[in-house]
Amino acid sequence: MRRYSQQKRFLFAVDCIIFGFDGQELKLMVIQRGFDPFKGEWSLVGGFVGETESAEDAAARVLKELTGLDGIYMEQLHAFSEIDRDSVERTISIAFFALIDIQKYKKQIIDYYHPAWISINELPNLIFDHSKIVELAKEKLRYKAALHPLLFELLPAKFTMPQLQSLYQSVYNTEFDKGNFNRKVLSTKLLMKLKDKDKLGSKKGAFYYKLDSKKYTASFNSFLNLVPGQHSWK
Amino acid sequence: MRRYSQQKRFLFAVDCIIFGFDGQELKLMVIQRGFDPFKGEWSLVGGFVGETESAEDAAARVLKELTGLDGIYMEQLHAFSEIDRDSVERTISIAFFALIDIQKYKKQIIDYYHPAWISINELPNLIFDHSKIVELAKEKLRYKAALHPLLFELLPAKFTMPQLQSLYQSVYNTEFDKGNFNRKVLSTKLLMKLKDKDKLGSKKGAFYYKLDSKKYTASFNSFLNLVPGQHSWK
Repeated sequence: MRRYSQQKRFLFAVDCIIFGFDGQELKLMVIQRGFDPFKGEWSLVGGFVGETESAEDAAARVLKELTGLDGIYMEQLHAFSEIDRDSVERTISIAFFALIDIQKYKKQIIDYYHPAWISINELPNLIFDHSKIVELAKEKLRYKAALHPLLFELLPAKFTMPQLQSLYQSVYNTEFDKGNFNRKVLSTKLLMKLKDKDKLGSKKGAFYYKLDSKKYTASFNSFLNLVPGQHSWK
Repeated sequence: MRRYSQQKRFLFAVDCIIFGFDGQELKLMVIQRGFDPFKGEWSLVGGFVGETESAEDAAARVLKELTGLDGIYMEQLHAFSEIDRDSVERTISIAFFALIDIQKYKKQIIDYYHPAWISINELPNLIFDHSKIVELAKEKLRYKAALHPLLFELLPAKFTMPQLQSLYQSVYNTEFDKGNFNRKVLSTKLLMKLKDKDKLGSKKGAFYYKLDSKKYTASFNSFLNLVPGQHSWK
């Protein structure tokens, strides 16, 4: 096994990019780093991988220890292995990401590391290459948002056009023209207009819609159904 | 920096999943492992990451050293970090994948490690968790194939329906009914029928088609264009 013994060993870490939607804006969970260097600065939720855990195990453990969040399905985003990405010692980081409904997990959050939800379009400086990691996660989120019902899953069972527009504006960091946005969304024929209105937002009120999930799935699949039986898309 | 010094360090490797299309079938590049344990057994193209290279650098170097293949764009697939995936010592591997035209790279291949192109539906046993890695890569390939012009890029500028069918059958490891397949493909309206025929395959001959790339792009984007200006899809 000489081939093995000659090799260099490295530190491994995980970083968790937790996006959350609070009904208004898309936010990112950041914490104040608990150790030097850069103690107290804003950081992704992250930590080292231990001897007896996979990166997936480590990500779940670290997320729970630092924020209290538990049982959140995280997907692997990318491994970051630039040799100088950590200024103390070379550390390879495997990044994971998830998108959650902030309200739903509010009670789980613990305060010790001051976890904070910050609007993804107003993020502070983050340590190391964390801003770069977040950029890649945002790109992936936009890609998935265009192809999957992902974003719709964050909306309440019934929602208004202004709510939907606010979610998309937050993800793409763009102001959409209201008329255009409504037209485009309705032209997909994926929404069903309901009879009742939300009267809190404006005097006139805004009709509620719900997603026609059958049609949504069918529409997604129509793009894929060149080939039969391939519907376990990740 | 006590937090760093307390941590365990691990071996770090890369594995390259190189898919190739030879005009008939989709194949995977495997090599005979050059060192113990399992010397001589079939393996993905892989190796350890050195002190002065990123995983991306290492993947390109290892691929060139072991097969001769050079200048191939590889995308990160996934990091594999199960603690017992390597029977000698814990090794975290980042897998990369690419899809190439076998003919185009034929001349680059060097023979030292007996690299071989094997049909992805007839793969031998591979060492460690390499079969699992290949399964994930195949899944990703199928997903990309359904959403991107990826597979079409491997076809010659003009191609016949039997050729296209053979490519898709190979990727999805399914026999398609010829009539159904033709109908489905033509219903996408993405192909343009040419006037000339390929007469080598059968007496009757098969018309050549070419991809209507404008329509192909438009069709892909129609799914995405809920949101303007987001077309740098990965």
